[in-house]
Amino acid sequence: MTSSVMDRLWAVVPAGGAGTRLWPLSRAASPKFLLDLTDSGRTLLQSTVDRLTPLVGDRVVVVTGAAHEEAVRAQLPGVERVVAEPSPRDSMAAIGLAAAQLELEDPEALIGSFAADHVITDPEAFAACLTEAAEVAATGLLVTIGIEPTHAATGFGYIRGGASVPGFATAELVSEFVEKPDAERAEAYVRSGEYRWNGGMFLVRATTLLDLLAENHPDLAAGLREIAGDPSLLAERWPTLTKIAIDHAVAEPAAVAGKVAMVPGPFGWEDIGDFSALAEMTPSGASGVKVIGDESLVLAQDASCLVVPAAGRTIAVIGLEDVVVVDTGDALLVTSYARAQEVKAVVDRLKATGRTDLT
Amino acid sequence: MTSSVMDRLWAVVPAGGAGTRLWPLSRAASPKFLLDLTDSGRTLLQSTVDRLTPLVGDRVVVVTGAAHEEAVRAQLPGVERVVAEPSPRDSMAAIGLAAAQLELEDPEALIGSFAADHVITDPEAFAACLTEAAEVAATGLLVTIGIEPTHAATGFGYIRGGASVPGFATAELVSEFVEKPDAERAEAYVRSGEYRWNGGMFLVRATTLLDLLAENHPDLAAGLREIAGDPSLLAERWPTLTKIAIDHAVAEPAAVAGKVAMVPGPFGWEDIGDFSALAEMTPSGASGVKVIGDESLVLAQDASCLVVPAAGRTIAVIGLEDVVVVDTGDALLVTSYARAQEVKAVVDRLKATGRTDLT
Repeated sequence: MTSSVMDRLWAVVPAGGAGTRLWPLSRAASPKFLLDLTDSGRTLLQSTVDRLTPLVGDRVVVVTGAAHEEAVRAQLPGVERVVAEPSPRDSMAAIGLAAAQLELEDPEALIGSFAADHVITDPEAFAACLTEAAEVAATGLLVTIGIEPTHAATGFGYIRGGASVPGFATAELVSEFVEKPDAERAEAYVRSGEYRWNGGMFLVRATTLLDLLAENHPDLAAGLREIAGDPSLLAERWPTLTKIAIDHAVAEPAAVAGKVAMVPGPFGWEDIGDFSALAEMTPSGASGVKVIGDESLVLAQDASCLVVPAAGRTIAVIGLEDVVVVDTGDALLVTSYARAQEVKAVVDRLKATGRTDLT
Repeated sequence: MTSSVMDRLWAVVPAGGAGTRLWPLSRAASPKFLLDLTDSGRTLLQSTVDRLTPLVGDRVVVVTGAAHEEAVRAQLPGVERVVAEPSPRDSMAAIGLAAAQLELEDPEALIGSFAADHVITDPEAFAACLTEAAEVAATGLLVTIGIEPTHAATGFGYIRGGASVPGFATAELVSEFVEKPDAERAEAYVRSGEYRWNGGMFLVRATTLLDLLAENHPDLAAGLREIAGDPSLLAERWPTLTKIAIDHAVAEPAAVAGKVAMVPGPFGWEDIGDFSALAEMTPSGASGVKVIGDESLVLAQDASCLVVPAAGRTIAVIGLEDVVVVDTGDALLVTSYARAQEVKAVVDRLKATGRTDLT
């Protein structure tokens, strides 16, 4: 059964979101997913496709904004299917359009949706998890991947598991999706051991996804299927589609109806939300500092820091603890690990003053 | 008496020293005195001459390294006498050569020596102090200016005053010069109330200076007088001159002999030794941060900092206290006020690795 199910699995990669908290590295024109944040020689988008290719071959669809289509194609010469959204309509429309197109080609098609800007450190565990998740999805359930919480994060939604899905090793039915909690509730969720992070990965039959969508948002489901049937409608119909996240549109109501399963994902998952998260996953180099880029440009003296010398200039850091220095051609950021979240506020200030050249 | 004495006073400005602790602003090619560190629109050298001109008119001699002659002339179009040293031979040779030249032109010439990279905040008090000091110098004493200590600095020499000089308002005979003390001794000096900082300013008859020098270093005094008499000897004789600071060569032995007076200088004096000292004298701008340069380039959020946006790039500083950010075209420094002294060590490391392009 395994091989035939995996042969029907398509990877859908929605590549959107600017990653504002990673300014000045990430900009509207060079969003997070186009950057090599792990200093691996591959961008987050390329790494995402790299880890999917052994599982799905060339059955990869990337959905991105029209502004980034060219950059996405340049980074992924092996991926033929790049769907360019005329404008951002949130994740349901992006993933749903790919599902509607694939459903036409193969009524039995399965899709897995994987964000273009997450980091996964154990690709073998990822492959094993996906294989089980695809098999569960083939039975007609919407399957989400549950990430073991490493701390009481307030930046992710949580999933509460429940009864096992009969016949599968680890899958459980999902009893509840909960939105990003406050610190106290996050603490309680993690302490209970019953909750996992919602990593935003879904596996589901293309037709199941659209049918579930049709139950709650019939216009959106119909619109997506219409565009898939006649691509010439895209420019005209796309802007009229409901802007909604896939979690709200489908996963939450389907969970209430007992149609969502969760497979635990024990594969080392990181959503690089800000420079503090990036520092945490970046190893210290010979000089004792964490450098994304050319380490020879950084002179550190009694300093613990994350330094990104993206402008090619020499950077000296002396006597500072847990400090972030990000150097680009036209903008420089200096902050601390503890305050890295606040980068967004600076970007908002720049936007408010019309500095589109810098954002 | 005042006017005639001041009419014979020449200002000698030795313009040397790289200011290594102010890297990456100051470099071998752009030393501290050529920089506008006070953000006043005038460099330290220009400000030095600006405050002397009302006192001495065009009787200004700048002594600088051959490598900086062109830059000095460009910054000081009104100063005709710029003496270029073929190589650095310390302050006694630099000031002594100017003294020997002036002595030939006017046997009664007085010289005042003023470093090119100090900041003085009260020019009127400076003028009053200099007027008394010149009058004392005209009597044949070597006169030094004593700076009221504001803290137990270990980076300056100290001067101990003694008996008043009869006939003058504030001048005292100097009983002792002491070298840069350790912290404990500095504390004791300041507590005693008997010591002042040696600000490195001397006023003396040109002939007196050279005669005092001849008592302890006859070859050096003779060499300087020979070169003054025949400038064609400069290139050949200069490298053979003893390399010694004016304090050691003349001031210390003359003090022992009772030939040195001190006039207190209550005019707000700063030797900008490092970025911490620069931060202390830089007022906070509208954004609450201290900016040397274009304040509109700096976005600070809950940060106390000194920022030098010398590369014209936008700089965001978030949630940091007492941090120094100095941004230049090819190098960036991030440190704290408390560790600003250690910039020198980084420059030494760069020099050790042959990075003359950066130092």
